[in-house]
Amino acid sequence: MRDIFHDELEAINETLLRMSGLVKEALTDATKALLTSDLQLAEKVIAADDVIDQIHHDLDNRTINLMARQQPVASDLRNLVSTLRMSADLERMGDLAHHIAKTARMRFPNCAVPEVLTSIIIDLDKTAASIVEKLSTIIQYKDVNRALELDKDDDEMDALHRKLIAVLLGDEWTYGIESAIDMTLLGRYYERFGDHAVSIANRVYFTVTGEYIPSL
Amino acid sequence: MRDIFHDELEAINETLLRMSGLVKEALTDATKALLTSDLQLAEKVIAADDVIDQIHHDLDNRTINLMARQQPVASDLRNLVSTLRMSADLERMGDLAHHIAKTARMRFPNCAVPEVLTSIIIDLDKTAASIVEKLSTIIQYKDVNRALELDKDDDEMDALHRKLIAVLLGDEWTYGIESAIDMTLLGRYYERFGDHAVSIANRVYFTVTGEYIPSL
Repeated sequence: MRDIFHDELEAINETLLRMSGLVKEALTDATKALLTSDLQLAEKVIAADDVIDQIHHDLDNRTINLMARQQPVASDLRNLVSTLRMSADLERMGDLAHHIAKTARMRFPNCAVPEVLTSIIIDLDKTAASIVEKLSTIIQYKDVNRALELDKDDDEMDALHRKLIAVLLGDEWTYGIESAIDMTLLGRYYERFGDHAVSIANRVYFTVTGEYIPSL
Repeated sequence: MRDIFHDELEAINETLLRMSGLVKEALTDATKALLTSDLQLAEKVIAADDVIDQIHHDLDNRTINLMARQQPVASDLRNLVSTLRMSADLERMGDLAHHIAKTARMRFPNCAVPEVLTSIIIDLDKTAASIVEKLSTIIQYKDVNRALELDKDDDEMDALHRKLIAVLLGDEWTYGIESAIDMTLLGRYYERFGDHAVSIANRVYFTVTGEYIPSL
């Protein structure tokens, strides 16, 4: 019985890993669509979000079925509960990439991001991509040291977000209110994307060690 | 065994109800603090968020312990899994009230909301309060008809949110970029607050009927 259980747990973990790969791709594509006003790519991200939602839905059903059939206790049960939460976080990260792609589509054929903010958006995307890259390792190998690192990477996201707001408030901002609203929301989407990644890393840390990450 | 289980399930449901009461109070207080530049009230909401977080944390532990001890299957198991999700949504609603209170504190002694937007913020608060009021009934009585209604109420939140953005983009907006950023984020917090309430209503609907709300 235990072997079947751990095989299924392993398969569930692989699905989480697949979700994190899809979410990374969605964010990278959404950022590219945003910066290059690529409508086709934006539409691709928007459509792909349904796939992530479906995987999330199926994964939850599999997890709940496994709970019902195998009746796990202690750490096995906590592991499955963590899976449900990680899957919800990943699904939400997909939504945020979807929001970014929708902003690109809304402003097409114009570019939603004024040149003065291009480099910050590139940095937000790069930092977020590196966070999801680490997240995949954390999920795959239950790597608690990397989980500890992620909090620092997220500080970088927050710093970039503050930098973005500073540009909006600076003298060089001549792009008006509509663009300021777009950029405020875009900044928020990237920031929340990072928050959800940290939340997943925390769950892995807790599942492995039974403790919360100290700084939290 | 079943009676103990259902007694505990009932107690868990009461805690969800208590959380929804606290979340409603937090939002009402946060809005009042925001509109009247009441620093003390803002601080109260900010501090009270720790209480909501603690209840969320304890509730999750109780739910997982109940799963481990009673090994529920089928609808009882789905019920407990729903509890975990509803508790996470309520905790997030508390965070959003906390964000609103922090905006009030950040702009103190000034008022973060320009007069031209006061009535929209009042309406967002009123609609959100009525949504959480219904949500309490939905949680308490597993009232699926009310759960269906909530989606419509949330449309009103979205309409108010669009109205807010329209004011920011209109000619009468003379309050500059900083205030536009504040109001964009505030609008987003209220909108997300409504989204989480709908998500909870959907889970109750699903738990009772075994089906998803048709319009979704």
